[in-house]
Amino acid sequence: MSGAPVKFQSRKSIGQVEEGSDLAPRFDDRGLITVVTTDATTGELLMQGYMNAEALGLTIQTGEAHYYSRSRQVLWHKGATSGFVQKVRELLVDDDQDCIWLRVNVAGGASCHVGFRSCFYRRVPVGEEFAKQQADGRVDLEWTDTEKVFDPEEVYGDAPNPTIL
Amino acid sequence: MSGAPVKFQSRKSIGQVEEGSDLAPRFDDRGLITVVTTDATTGELLMQGYMNAEALGLTIQTGEAHYYSRSRQVLWHKGATSGFVQKVRELLVDDDQDCIWLRVNVAGGASCHVGFRSCFYRRVPVGEEFAKQQADGRVDLEWTDTEKVFDPEEVYGDAPNPTIL
Repeated sequence: MSGAPVKFQSRKSIGQVEEGSDLAPRFDDRGLITVVTTDATTGELLMQGYMNAEALGLTIQTGEAHYYSRSRQVLWHKGATSGFVQKVRELLVDDDQDCIWLRVNVAGGASCHVGFRSCFYRRVPVGEEFAKQQADGRVDLEWTDTEKVFDPEEVYGDAPNPTIL
Repeated sequence: MSGAPVKFQSRKSIGQVEEGSDLAPRFDDRGLITVVTTDATTGELLMQGYMNAEALGLTIQTGEAHYYSRSRQVLWHKGATSGFVQKVRELLVDDDQDCIWLRVNVAGGASCHVGFRSCFYRRVPVGEEFAKQQADGRVDLEWTDTEKVFDPEEVYGDAPNPTIL
């Protein structure tokens, strides 16, 4: 941890938010902001999560990704359990400051609780490819990654699965 | 448009959702799913948006990105006004199927209503860099792109700015 706690500015005008240099993030009615996390080396999308103000401040201060876990309702230092800490190479904010983009490197290379490198390991056929495959409109996902980089049971034991049906 | 309307499957088990080949997306209590859109060529994050079931179905059928605009509360065929249509090169879904990743190519190259190529044109200094820059915890955003690829006034005229303070 280094430096003073991060101070966010209040949102005063569209000019300030969109074309100024103030960090004035918009947290939603749950107090959360959307986060998109990509691999800084490969550009691959690793995960999409949420931060509250505390998590965003700690990420900026420490240079390691902190999120807010909606399923567990706690501050979440990514990698604290699994060891797969995300080192932030670049943190960007979007035009209206309601989304954060983290470009990270992950020690050990995994970001997905199922065991894959990325949470996005299945693709949906689109357009002509979709039309050719299914006459009835049903979609068959195709796997883009089939090799798990860790065994979730070994890492998480019998902790509850975070997926909500 | 090609093929039958897209049919989504109902969500029955964690195994089905996380490790099956059914497309069983989880729309939230507003009927929306989060979408992350990157440039298929450069890997750059272009925007983060939302789809309802209709928008996701049309994206799969047509191969062009459709979103749901929360500020305007309408189905939004991206590029219908600006001409910057997003051709979907790949559509992926995450482990628990509550997030969609679009890898697109954009005719004309712009995705941001402010006029930049990407919505993410400002970075936040993190870790040691943050500590060095500001003694009082205030953050100064740094610009990563200063060249607008179009003039928003020419393209959108006096349509209301979608940013919510």
